Amino acid sequence: MASRKEVADLAGVSEATVSRVLNGVGPIKEETRRKVLEASEQLGYVPSALARSFARSKSGNLGVVLPYVPKAHLFSAYFFSEMLSGIGSKARDNSMDLLVMFRTPGEVMNYTDLFRRQKVDACIILGARDDHEELAAMQQLHQEGHPFCVMNQHFEGQSFTEVDADHVEGSRLAIRHLTDQGYRKIAFLNGPDSYSNSQERMEGVCLGLQEAGMELDPSLLLKGNYSRRSGIEAAAIVADRLHEIDAVFAANDRMAIGVMHGLRERGIGPADFPAFVGYDDSDAAEMAVPPLSSVRVPFFEMGELAVSKLMHGSVGDTHKANNSVVAVTESARALLPTELIIRASSIRQ
Amino acid sequence: MASRKEVADLAGVSEATVSRVLNGVGPIKEETRRKVLEASEQLGYVPSALARSFARSKSGNLGVVLPYVPKAHLFSAYFFSEMLSGIGSKARDNSMDLLVMFRTPGEVMNYTDLFRRQKVDACIILGARDDHEELAAMQQLHQEGHPFCVMNQHFEGQSFTEVDADHVEGSRLAIRHLTDQGYRKIAFLNGPDSYSNSQERMEGVCLGLQEAGMELDPSLLLKGNYSRRSGIEAAAIVADRLHEIDAVFAANDRMAIGVMHGLRERGIGPADFPAFVGYDDSDAAEMAVPPLSSVRVPFFEMGELAVSKLMHGSVGDTHKANNSVVAVTESARALLPTELIIRASSIRQ
Repeated sequence: MASRKEVADLAGVSEATVSRVLNGVGPIKEETRRKVLEASEQLGYVPSALARSFARSKSGNLGVVLPYVPKAHLFSAYFFSEMLSGIGSKARDNSMDLLVMFRTPGEVMNYTDLFRRQKVDACIILGARDDHEELAAMQQLHQEGHPFCVMNQHFEGQSFTEVDADHVEGSRLAIRHLTDQGYRKIAFLNGPDSYSNSQERMEGVCLGLQEAGMELDPSLLLKGNYSRRSGIEAAAIVADRLHEIDAVFAANDRMAIGVMHGLRERGIGPADFPAFVGYDDSDAAEMAVPPLSSVRVPFFEMGELAVSKLMHGSVGDTHKANNSVVAVTESARALLPTELIIRASSIRQ
Repeated sequence: MASRKEVADLAGVSEATVSRVLNGVGPIKEETRRKVLEASEQLGYVPSALARSFARSKSGNLGVVLPYVPKAHLFSAYFFSEMLSGIGSKARDNSMDLLVMFRTPGEVMNYTDLFRRQKVDACIILGARDDHEELAAMQQLHQEGHPFCVMNQHFEGQSFTEVDADHVEGSRLAIRHLTDQGYRKIAFLNGPDSYSNSQERMEGVCLGLQEAGMELDPSLLLKGNYSRRSGIEAAAIVADRLHEIDAVFAANDRMAIGVMHGLRERGIGPADFPAFVGYDDSDAAEMAVPPLSSVRVPFFEMGELAVSKLMHGSVGDTHKANNSVVAVTESARALLPTELIIRASSIRQ
């Protein structure tokens, strides 16, 4: 079989260029690529690394695993789309393409197979589930040393690379903003417990109430599923108990806006609204009437940070992202700060 | 060198399975894959097709090219995220992964290179520009027979596979809805002419006015750039001429909602608003106060259809998507129907 040197000589390029072309690495002029491919073909040259293993060379792809729910139009959910934008932006800076993969609920992902099949060089997992199979799949990835990062979900007791935001603090801030203005009858519309994010919001709510010398009234704890529809449904309860509820804190903006709409549908106008604080600070918060106070989560920066961690392997240090210091609570878990954005919906008249 | 048959014998599988494993095609049990890879490695087997050309085997990836504007948070734009969701949904049905690639404005994409480097098997191009270089790149793709589809942009006089929506008809419907109710002083806030979409909206507006025996008043033609910010800016003109303007048709919802916000900032309440019709029927339209009438564009279905066209090569026929017949105006261009959704913002009191 021909050698790499013979291919390089025939193509009139260096041996390094031959490797770069055949491994598909880096920017290469079309003319050069053509010459190398023609020379390789003419001489029947096969790079030996390729023959030994598909798995060792680089794909140039960063995998992103998303939960797939038919008809849910996932990219439209503010936090997924913002995180993906951040991931895409930083991936682009690193000359990587994004390989987006969908997983149906209940599907067991063979993450390690993605690496073995050379589909991806690194992987970001969004919307991971907190169950035994998912955990086992990630532990396998971890043991085999494949670079991956879990976003917006925390696996207790594991040392996975994780990027998340400080939802305990964000929720505490929201509650303190309300209690500081004298609100006492605060309804909390949370999402499902199966997300660590919901649990953290609950923790922050309890903390904030405690600081104000209050306790969570279980009858004011409402359950939704992060959809606007579930907010509209919760509005029935809020409307019925309007005299007992003077503020509503919702675990995302969509549910807060859903409650507002549900109240309007019942003929209750903004003048009679309880105070509202949402979560995510999505673009819908700013557009709401009245404009919705909300906890800002730096989704875009979280996406960027996840890629940086994977590219540079900078795990366990204190990071700087967008000039704000990132607290790292465990060795590999980065928590980005959240911030309360105050708008008209929660300002006591 | 060993033959495929020897590898198959050693691994205890069929020759077809050896090919499937080494080409990364179709679902294969991990156990089988491992056996084949081990046998190939042990025997030093290299599939000859691989030696001849990287370009001929399948990557299993569907490429999606998106315009990249730093900080624009692209996935958040309603129509991009909906189209991507549709693309992702149908890609998943076809067991393909999405390879998302960003292009900076002004960057000349080497589309054919993506195919040669075996990064993608087919390609969908969103946000294509209408200029000479872009056209040349696509003509090259077309000539080389690579499957690709242009979405939401029309190249006049070419026979590219295109998926778009009927914006002429959508805009005509919006105007007729207004003129039928007696609105006569209709401001039209359009986006930049460089998008074929904007030109089509203009055509539909002129057609609708003509049908009502009216003409476009050039002083009521306002220019924005599809951002909410540009709607807020246009509100200055609308506010100044409130007595001369009884309705506003905006080329997307974000601009319409921007105008509403700009009017509110100037102390003009919904009771004194002109009638409003937006475009896209994004989730923001439903959440607006008052709820915004809007032209619905089936972005999700457009994404699905683009993938179907690429997968099945069904070009030039009459398609059925979601039970609605799709009109095909040119051999390879599919135009999905638009629909006016009427809400409180445009109903004459």
